[in-house]
Amino acid sequence: MDSRLDKQFEFIGEIDKEKKIVRQTFLSDGSRKENDAEHAWHAAIMAVLLSEYANEKIDVLKTVTMLLLHDVVEIDAGDTYAYDEEGKKTQRQREVTAADRIYGLLPEDQKKKYRDLWEEFEACETPEAKFARTMDHIQPLILNDASGGLSWLDHGVSVSQILDRNKNTAKGSEALWEYSREKLIKPNVESGKIKNDID
Amino acid sequence: MDSRLDKQFEFIGEIDKEKKIVRQTFLSDGSRKENDAEHAWHAAIMAVLLSEYANEKIDVLKTVTMLLLHDVVEIDAGDTYAYDEEGKKTQRQREVTAADRIYGLLPEDQKKKYRDLWEEFEACETPEAKFARTMDHIQPLILNDASGGLSWLDHGVSVSQILDRNKNTAKGSEALWEYSREKLIKPNVESGKIKNDID
Repeated sequence: MDSRLDKQFEFIGEIDKEKKIVRQTFLSDGSRKENDAEHAWHAAIMAVLLSEYANEKIDVLKTVTMLLLHDVVEIDAGDTYAYDEEGKKTQRQREVTAADRIYGLLPEDQKKKYRDLWEEFEACETPEAKFARTMDHIQPLILNDASGGLSWLDHGVSVSQILDRNKNTAKGSEALWEYSREKLIKPNVESGKIKNDID
Repeated sequence: MDSRLDKQFEFIGEIDKEKKIVRQTFLSDGSRKENDAEHAWHAAIMAVLLSEYANEKIDVLKTVTMLLLHDVVEIDAGDTYAYDEEGKKTQRQREVTAADRIYGLLPEDQKKKYRDLWEEFEACETPEAKFARTMDHIQPLILNDASGGLSWLDHGVSVSQILDRNKNTAKGSEALWEYSREKLIKPNVESGKIKNDID
């Protein structure tokens, strides 16, 4: 049993590095950018609290697990900013290589289970993957809105970029996408924190 | 529905502050102390990966939810260090007041559900609460061991303090407590990173 536990503890130790992968989103108070572990924690709680709004019935534990682990690959592959078109060209290959190494630390059965779960998240076709993606995309909208649009202003983000980025957000939850568009995006377009390039 | 969503999003926005509550545990690489959100993320993943070692059958989603939310009260009450005997005297009252305010942001049904879940975690009597507590206590042992005992050395922590702190850790999982004692505590007592006050 110790050999199995050694592998599990090695993985658990390794993922500590996710706390050092910095995203482009600022905390609500604008004091600093958040990291992947904080983002995953926040999105996982959102999945628990908002599961009632999923378009399809979801297995909440599966969705939460997906969200807790979805950015582990960024330990090796780094965070690719949502609007970094150059970085996105190599993102998939960098992340697959990372998944092989990092999930490979686990015992064989868990390696397969959690690597498959990451692929399921990436493919975004099952009810759980679609809802997890909705959480993953709405969470930074909440922070950007709260911080006075710091990250949007830093990167000169436009509403068409945000709508393109969120073209699948409604697939997990029509209700939450509708709410986010009205309460988090629209007011920030009106106030100029998001560039209005479509009206 | 908007009023329900407003409350849920207010709670989700509020808990962003947990990312600023600093604990005494250093990250594995010793570069800085971790915060409550990072700790909760890490412990929640541990519960998913290690549930097979629970002494009693557990509801994993319930355990994970407990862990994700267990430190929300520290937004108002602050982190009370495990070996701060003065702080611990007022900890319960500070945390109850915090729970009333913070869980009170949620719609009534969720307020009751998640405040009760926090009380269940605190009471540490159900299989889920006991296993969650085991994760909560083993996670910093992993980080302290990895960082070369930085936090133990900073505070001059002794093995009797650690054993007292962990007097309930085996109640969630005998196997994980045994493993942690052998692999995380014993070598650090031998190397002097934990003060040996019992031999």
